[in-house]
Amino acid sequence: MPITITAIDAFDIRFPTSRQHIGSDAINPDPDYSAAYCILRTGSGIDGHGLTFTIGRGNELCAAALQSLSPLLIGRTLESLTEDMAGFWRMITGDSQLRWLGPEKGVIHLATAALVNAVWDLWAKAERKPVWKLLSSMSPEQLVSCIDFRYITDALTPEEALEILQAQAPTRPQREAEMLARGYPAYTTSAGWLGFTDTQLCGLCREAIAQGWTHFKIKVGGDLQDDIRRCAIIRKEIGTLPLMMDANQRWDVGQAISDMKALAQFDPWWIEEPTSPDDVLGHAAIKKAIAPIRVATGEHCQNRVVFKQFFQANGIDICQIDSCRLGGVNEILAVLLMAAKFGIPVCPHAGGVGLCEYVQHLSIFDYVCVSGSLRDRVVEYVDHLHEHFVDPVRIQNGRYMPPSAPGYSIEMKAESLKTFGYPEGPTWKELLASRD
Amino acid sequence: MPITITAIDAFDIRFPTSRQHIGSDAINPDPDYSAAYCILRTGSGIDGHGLTFTIGRGNELCAAALQSLSPLLIGRTLESLTEDMAGFWRMITGDSQLRWLGPEKGVIHLATAALVNAVWDLWAKAERKPVWKLLSSMSPEQLVSCIDFRYITDALTPEEALEILQAQAPTRPQREAEMLARGYPAYTTSAGWLGFTDTQLCGLCREAIAQGWTHFKIKVGGDLQDDIRRCAIIRKEIGTLPLMMDANQRWDVGQAISDMKALAQFDPWWIEEPTSPDDVLGHAAIKKAIAPIRVATGEHCQNRVVFKQFFQANGIDICQIDSCRLGGVNEILAVLLMAAKFGIPVCPHAGGVGLCEYVQHLSIFDYVCVSGSLRDRVVEYVDHLHEHFVDPVRIQNGRYMPPSAPGYSIEMKAESLKTFGYPEGPTWKELLASRD
Repeated sequence: MPITITAIDAFDIRFPTSRQHIGSDAINPDPDYSAAYCILRTGSGIDGHGLTFTIGRGNELCAAALQSLSPLLIGRTLESLTEDMAGFWRMITGDSQLRWLGPEKGVIHLATAALVNAVWDLWAKAERKPVWKLLSSMSPEQLVSCIDFRYITDALTPEEALEILQAQAPTRPQREAEMLARGYPAYTTSAGWLGFTDTQLCGLCREAIAQGWTHFKIKVGGDLQDDIRRCAIIRKEIGTLPLMMDANQRWDVGQAISDMKALAQFDPWWIEEPTSPDDVLGHAAIKKAIAPIRVATGEHCQNRVVFKQFFQANGIDICQIDSCRLGGVNEILAVLLMAAKFGIPVCPHAGGVGLCEYVQHLSIFDYVCVSGSLRDRVVEYVDHLHEHFVDPVRIQNGRYMPPSAPGYSIEMKAESLKTFGYPEGPTWKELLASRD
Repeated sequence: MPITITAIDAFDIRFPTSRQHIGSDAINPDPDYSAAYCILRTGSGIDGHGLTFTIGRGNELCAAALQSLSPLLIGRTLESLTEDMAGFWRMITGDSQLRWLGPEKGVIHLATAALVNAVWDLWAKAERKPVWKLLSSMSPEQLVSCIDFRYITDALTPEEALEILQAQAPTRPQREAEMLARGYPAYTTSAGWLGFTDTQLCGLCREAIAQGWTHFKIKVGGDLQDDIRRCAIIRKEIGTLPLMMDANQRWDVGQAISDMKALAQFDPWWIEEPTSPDDVLGHAAIKKAIAPIRVATGEHCQNRVVFKQFFQANGIDICQIDSCRLGGVNEILAVLLMAAKFGIPVCPHAGGVGLCEYVQHLSIFDYVCVSGSLRDRVVEYVDHLHEHFVDPVRIQNGRYMPPSAPGYSIEMKAESLKTFGYPEGPTWKELLASRD
């Protein structure tokens, strides 16, 4: 029996995280972690789930965009999509009228990611494998056939992609066994949010060290003297362990260079998002000026065309793909392969809601099939909101352990979808009433 | 009495242009020219009107985004916005939760443009001047104070912007007189759409020449042999007059170079959108390879940060700003000034619905106050849908004549808003019923 997508449900789900300053940084003082969530209904016993992550207001626009895109998928069989995955991706990003709204960026691309990921969730469930394993079971040729190479052939041809994958193919089993035994290394951002007091910062550092974390991240980009004070506190707490800094796009190019020169005394392992995520040449200038401090960006990088230029311009040292700002698994494959060609480690952005669940699949696959290396690679981890997922991440000794359930680990509990629906779910009904 | 924005109405307006292949090109075969339209209601006797342009499906998302952004303006007095225009623009693009959806790109930025332009329309009406004249009446210092320089200070400082404006200030009156007498030069795209037959193409060329047009544009990027045939026809019809070509993002970098080498025999004046609008470095590579053919892009350029890089990387010869893809007048001022600093002519994108009405103000201001030159400068003109505007463009001898009515010329007739509302207006009710 073919599996046919007969309907698509879209949800606007929001968690009132701003009440605890969770996720606060220089640009985002009060995020309410949110998901525009979709379910591809099939009536076959399995459904495809996907989400895109936002931080509150505007989530309704991504949920509406899910509905705008849905006619492209409704009535399609899973097989008609999976037999030509590059064609599927070209189709869903190529509707000529909807494409005008991007192209391939912003609200329409965020919603595209949720739907594309939901197709991968459905496919993996049909194959009874977690997504990382579905990908790792494909031949190099099959993987290449999932990628739309439009606009990137000047940096990576299908033939080059194939060579990269073929080179790693014989040794896949040993890396898969290693992942199953030890997991993929992670780092924590839970301690360093700007909204926390110095005392909270100290307490959270100690707690994280006790839990076995070895890499730490602190938010910078506020007042420089304040940044210096907080970096001094965290550096004292963690000793010589690696410390990442994250400016969340706060600086112009010149200020990024001068402030990072002042923060260099704390031996940053990388500076993340020093300026506009659109500024390839600005990142290249910053990187040159503050070497050997690494420059990282990508969580707001809109598509493979911008990542291509970061690689071509020598603009970044660390590639921080986002699992649902890029247009889902297909576009991520393109970026992982370009990163491998240019020798840039991929350390995915995570946190928020559902991002940890997604990215574990991507990094495990990257190690097994693409990069073959763990050097300078750690995946972000934040211990929030995992309780809402049917198959939440499992962290052991500061590492992501490979999921074993079929799918993309992104299915939320029905109860959570109901409770945190915006604005009609009981949590928001109560909160909004109390605000009035 | 202060003018206070008390309510904002948002409209989803669509014209069924796809039925006549109007606007068809290699990427957009069947656009329905549309506007997400807003009215800032003040109850003072004047309202502010603005729109953002889309090509059909998805216009509902821009209209919804107008509503998502409206709380930032409702209750504000006009004066509280105009006394700090850079601060106003930072505020409307800086809502931390909504910013996540871009930042400064896609649906949320398109809607921002409509609202920002509506504020300028309101301001100009309050001052009883057309927008071009309001701008041209401001001192260099006042103009600079309208710009948010975040992310562009490495290319243009406020001091440099001031110098550019001061250099042109003494001679403003003579250029203003010239504009009022002769208008700003334009070119027509009406002839060259892909969906037209060869016979239609010939007929439209002859008609355009008879009307006094001197520059022509043809859509390319389909099958190369087809492009060659159509370019040969139009070149024969127009003799030695300038012929622009427009590929609408159809090519990868390598193909852009090879196809343009094949089309060079027709002496193109520029090639527009040869590849992805996000690909600064790709455009730079194409420009280098096909010189002296000019490279033009910008109608899909998302914000000032990307234009900055086009200038820095020597990626374009012609800057085609869009009046409502960039975030309204404020951001356009930044781009006009960067273009002047880097010596790049600005030839705005127009056509669609309302774009001609908008851009005439921008180009006239650019000539009077910023560039001071008409060299290599022409504004696009398409003779469609002007009948829906209260103060439509006036073309004389292939030139835009400066509007004299107060405002931004973007106010649509109430009857048009009613007739073409989607999906409830009478035109769409009838069309959608006939499709069922």
